[in-house]
Amino acid sequence: VALLVALDKPVEPGLAGLLCRVPGVAGVKVGLPAALRGGIGWARSVARECDGLRVVDFKLADISSVMASTVEPFLGHYDAFIAHSFVGVEGALDGLKSLLDSAGAKLVLVATMSHEGARDVYDPSLPLVERVVERVDPWGIVAPATRPGLVSRLRGRFPGKVILSPGVGAQGARPGAALCAGADYEIVGRSIMDTGDPVEAARLVAAAQERALASCGGGAVGGG
Amino acid sequence: VALLVALDKPVEPGLAGLLCRVPGVAGVKVGLPAALRGGIGWARSVARECDGLRVVDFKLADISSVMASTVEPFLGHYDAFIAHSFVGVEGALDGLKSLLDSAGAKLVLVATMSHEGARDVYDPSLPLVERVVERVDPWGIVAPATRPGLVSRLRGRFPGKVILSPGVGAQGARPGAALCAGADYEIVGRSIMDTGDPVEAARLVAAAQERALASCGGGAVGGG
Repeated sequence: VALLVALDKPVEPGLAGLLCRVPGVAGVKVGLPAALRGGIGWARSVARECDGLRVVDFKLADISSVMASTVEPFLGHYDAFIAHSFVGVEGALDGLKSLLDSAGAKLVLVATMSHEGARDVYDPSLPLVERVVERVDPWGIVAPATRPGLVSRLRGRFPGKVILSPGVGAQGARPGAALCAGADYEIVGRSIMDTGDPVEAARLVAAAQERALASCGGGAVGGG
Repeated sequence: VALLVALDKPVEPGLAGLLCRVPGVAGVKVGLPAALRGGIGWARSVARECDGLRVVDFKLADISSVMASTVEPFLGHYDAFIAHSFVGVEGALDGLKSLLDSAGAKLVLVATMSHEGARDVYDPSLPLVERVVERVDPWGIVAPATRPGLVSRLRGRFPGKVILSPGVGAQGARPGAALCAGADYEIVGRSIMDTGDPVEAARLVAAAQERALASCGGGAVGGG
């Protein structure tokens, strides 16, 4: 079970539950556009429907007090929260990490991103970003399926961390590409949700992941 | 008029309008915690109350499609949108800039931040960040009042850009510190909103800015 379905638009009641029960689907990730449109109540109802890993992905990148106040309504409903490592420790990720620890929630830090522009600043800063990851010691990190070499590098550097990889589907990476490079979960949004039948699409992506893993010799996935 | 009041919690109807009419107040900035709790309808009502500069500050830091979908409900209601420069151009800020341009809205890019942790990755990456700012050519940039040397540097580097400076008040910078270093607006949140009388507190901060400007010899402020 290595597929996280990204919800970037609000979905009708029941669909998140159906998606979470598809074999191979590990859980859902709720994005900022969906949470703003659907509201906190909608986001909580998605979390209630899904037994798997529930991730809030706002790509938090602010000072401690703002990030804390942003995640607060989702604590107790979601399992993990994604923030940017770029903002650094003191006055930013330190406070967020403490809050999540005390709430029994997991922190996931973006190490770099899936789009071309990640080469402008994020990639050249990777050694500094890695030092932030080391110091903050999050549960997981985000590394791009579109650039599996970076997934391998981060897998080697952080053997104990769960790796979540976006970029599969609409952004060009094939299902399984990141898993074969060492990721624990692949995040897939548009190529599942922008179809007439998201449940069937999720089933197909999960099956494609399985096939890819079989051919690259990957073992048990879905970490943590 | 150089004071932007940061709303990080939803405020009751009418208060944003009163704040925007305080002499010296240039407008309001709505943060992510407030927008999530208050909802899109609340954020639009704040914008309707305020005749000044209306800024959405979600510290956007994602791929183009997600950032576009995040700002879309606020277009036509808010004037400017804050995003992080570190996400880079292609596949991220390029798409956001095009969307905002076509909607007649302004882009503001964070150049660096106000907290200590900004020294971990953001500051050492400043030359790369500046190159992104140059390429994207936003209306404004964000630089921290807590570190006026950086405001001066960015003022020199980008003479035509509007500079917005957070960090005044709760984070330690004194009113006027960033204006004297070359900023156009100072963003003040908690030391106005976490008082019993935010309107009076805004009046006092604006007056303190005026006094600071008079003593540092600053001229007309409130750019754009």
